[in-house]
Amino acid sequence: MKKDSNLVWHPQCVSKEERSKIKNQKPCILWFTGLSGSGKSTIANEVELILNQRGYHTYLLDGDNIRLGLNSGLGFSDEDRVENIRRIGEVSKLFVDSGLIVLTAFISPFMKDRERVKCLVNSDEFIEIFVDTPLSVCEARDTKGLYTKARAGEIVNFTGVSSIYEEPIDAHIVVKTEANSVEEVANKIVEYLELKGYLDA
Amino acid sequence: MKKDSNLVWHPQCVSKEERSKIKNQKPCILWFTGLSGSGKSTIANEVELILNQRGYHTYLLDGDNIRLGLNSGLGFSDEDRVENIRRIGEVSKLFVDSGLIVLTAFISPFMKDRERVKCLVNSDEFIEIFVDTPLSVCEARDTKGLYTKARAGEIVNFTGVSSIYEEPIDAHIVVKTEANSVEEVANKIVEYLELKGYLDA
Repeated sequence: MKKDSNLVWHPQCVSKEERSKIKNQKPCILWFTGLSGSGKSTIANEVELILNQRGYHTYLLDGDNIRLGLNSGLGFSDEDRVENIRRIGEVSKLFVDSGLIVLTAFISPFMKDRERVKCLVNSDEFIEIFVDTPLSVCEARDTKGLYTKARAGEIVNFTGVSSIYEEPIDAHIVVKTEANSVEEVANKIVEYLELKGYLDA
Repeated sequence: MKKDSNLVWHPQCVSKEERSKIKNQKPCILWFTGLSGSGKSTIANEVELILNQRGYHTYLLDGDNIRLGLNSGLGFSDEDRVENIRRIGEVSKLFVDSGLIVLTAFISPFMKDRERVKCLVNSDEFIEIFVDTPLSVCEARDTKGLYTKARAGEIVNFTGVSSIYEEPIDAHIVVKTEANSVEEVANKIVEYLELKGYLDA
């Protein structure tokens, strides 16, 4: 990493607390992780909808969306995946600093990368949500037809097929999408936020 | 740029309008551009302070700050400067999408780069503010001692000394910091936002 000794942190006049106090919420990152097709985006969308309808200020960073913009130059090699998650972590940190509850829905297969994001913010500002859907179920769903392509060798470095997924061992919330509906899972997450004091703070 | 044909835009349930309607503001980018030492960060901070005190939701992206995080791997070559501004533009777009008024304070010396950012958002969501402080004044201030270092050849590619600055030709707002105080300049910018319907929208 190139560093420049002429860089200094510019003190900002408006603090995170001042930005979020008009919102009655405690900013944080809801970091969804899980296999492709596990239901991360669907659940994150539902959680965001519930929070927005209740007047909280949220933003959703989505794997597909961010790769078309900020990370459009990155591919799917291990190296690019690391940089992909690093940038998303840094952007999430900015959103937390701006006072928002930010939801991120990325496979984020490597434990070390998720740990690195966790270290960017205060310990109570990072909530890891493991969408624990078995590979067999994700593959049977194959919503985007990606598993078929990966098995046929048309996609390389595909998580679960030709690239590793490291399961979280101490996620704050673990959700199962086989036995529960999207609404049930989303409500469980919102209840966690209420219980832990993130809402009506 | 590597692209992946398997990427699709994931429709998001909560829209920009829904995110910002609880705020009575029209989200936009206030893009400050000007030489090092021209006063960009100082003015942007003052504008943010005024807006925050009046209950608007803002966020400030600052050159020094973002280079320590998201863009920590980038240097100051022309190529890295282009990528620096590209990423800041993409992040600004995300903040506008989240409903905020985002202020950015970067030298952003190249017209083409600023134009590219402008094209990322709707035409009324990008407000270019030229902090028109002459080089001689910036160099006399030399707040961070960078001009001295640049003249001594200790910093390469320094805008105004060894790298070009392309002045905006149709900035929405042009401010002069020699004849006016920070407060006067900041108030002028806030008045522009009021007049154009960005506040109490």
